[in-house]
Amino acid sequence: MADLLLGRPVADAIKEDLARRVAVLAEKGITPRLAVIRLGEDPGDMAYERSILRNCEKLGCAAQSIALPRDIGQEALIAKIEEVNADPSIHGCLLLRPLPQHMDSAKVCDALAPEKDLDGMGCRALGALFAGRKDAFAPCTAQACLEMLKFYGIDPAGKRAAVVGRSLVIGRPAGQLLLQADATVTLCHSRTPDLPAVCREADILIVAVGRAGMIDREHTRPGQVILDVGVNSVDGKLCGDVRTEEAAGIAAAVSPVPGGVGAVTPSVLMAHLVEAAERAI
Amino acid sequence: MADLLLGRPVADAIKEDLARRVAVLAEKGITPRLAVIRLGEDPGDMAYERSILRNCEKLGCAAQSIALPRDIGQEALIAKIEEVNADPSIHGCLLLRPLPQHMDSAKVCDALAPEKDLDGMGCRALGALFAGRKDAFAPCTAQACLEMLKFYGIDPAGKRAAVVGRSLVIGRPAGQLLLQADATVTLCHSRTPDLPAVCREADILIVAVGRAGMIDREHTRPGQVILDVGVNSVDGKLCGDVRTEEAAGIAAAVSPVPGGVGAVTPSVLMAHLVEAAERAI
Repeated sequence: MADLLLGRPVADAIKEDLARRVAVLAEKGITPRLAVIRLGEDPGDMAYERSILRNCEKLGCAAQSIALPRDIGQEALIAKIEEVNADPSIHGCLLLRPLPQHMDSAKVCDALAPEKDLDGMGCRALGALFAGRKDAFAPCTAQACLEMLKFYGIDPAGKRAAVVGRSLVIGRPAGQLLLQADATVTLCHSRTPDLPAVCREADILIVAVGRAGMIDREHTRPGQVILDVGVNSVDGKLCGDVRTEEAAGIAAAVSPVPGGVGAVTPSVLMAHLVEAAERAI
Repeated sequence: MADLLLGRPVADAIKEDLARRVAVLAEKGITPRLAVIRLGEDPGDMAYERSILRNCEKLGCAAQSIALPRDIGQEALIAKIEEVNADPSIHGCLLLRPLPQHMDSAKVCDALAPEKDLDGMGCRALGALFAGRKDAFAPCTAQACLEMLKFYGIDPAGKRAAVVGRSLVIGRPAGQLLLQADATVTLCHSRTPDLPAVCREADILIVAVGRAGMIDREHTRPGQVILDVGVNSVDGKLCGDVRTEEAAGIAAAVSPVPGGVGAVTPSVLMAHLVEAAERAI
């Protein structure tokens, strides 16, 4: 039976490291400060925001919610983002997405200063990621995948990795991070012929499509490490893209949903906030 | 015997299209104008610059050389780039690289306005490429690979592609462009285990490493299309990364060096210049 790669111990290890760094910053009179920009009052957004604010508090960081009406104009939102950019007391910012349809999402995301762009939304952060530069932040969930591998002692160097799903928040950035970690990376998607065979080539398989149960025993082989980043709701129950039990009968290790990569993402956000505060000195 | 994918007909087709578009712009009183920034007097740089200026002239575009001393300070160079950004008569700019060691190359490249960054050097252009946005320019040689495929009727959609080499000017951007064209893309490099086997998986193989003859019959299979983007000098003779004759005995099509992808790059630069002028209207 495969190892179950739980997110909690990874998150705990990251937070333990961050607590030390926050204490060092506190000695210098600095408290990392996060701004969360939320448009409208979607219950999911509000619950997510509350959990982020709670994480900040627990870690000794400051946080503020900037709640704006969902029908705010694009220019007004950009003006707000520019206020955040100009405010030296704010070290990092998270803009809850998706943005309303009436906005040019790329233009809004690009407005955030790259040094405060904790979730790697704007083109400057994404370009720095693509260029392998360390002066900007990768999208948090993509980086959470790499944190999982690191914690569990799985070095991507010299291995074959496959990423299923090419979203800009997970699949594509995870592929870049794996490449920078010296994996040979195959980027798969809906147009990939014989997906099961391509997945079986991989030593490390990262799945982030958003289709419940799409990865089964056919995609799996012995020795493989599988990170399931899918988040789906089936009959009111949260599940991933991987048929965990089937995969666990064959692979070496599988991360569950819930309790896998998703449990690491909030700690990566905190890590980016603390790093932004350290860099701002 | 494999088809030989020559660059010349591709370049000619691009230039034919551009000539029409330059004529349309001329009717509106607009002449696309390129600035080439060159540091120092390297003979290779100067020859390349002359050929670019000649291409502009032939196509009815304007061009100017901005020649600066090789020991210019970084801030002075950035100030010059900002002049180019602010000059509405200049539609696009090419900064000849590599820059001198005393400069932070990324910072200099980032200074160029993305709408004038014809060779996709800066992080905003690279981020836009990575995000699949069409509002910036991809590195010219990477795009030349896609122009070759398009001209010769090879649609990457649903095919497997492998890119060998992960440079920021060819390998990585070519991988992104193939992904956007719906290929399943594998990114290979010096740490790839069993490179010949990985290459043989590919329907489309793009090689851009810079090691003469590194790709031979072992990496090739029937039906494969190979683009050789390597540029090497062996005994004073120009050659690519692929043993063209060996590969041609097995694959369906191979591009030669010289006379392959490299012959298309200058036309892609011209295409970016004309597009920049069209967008500036």
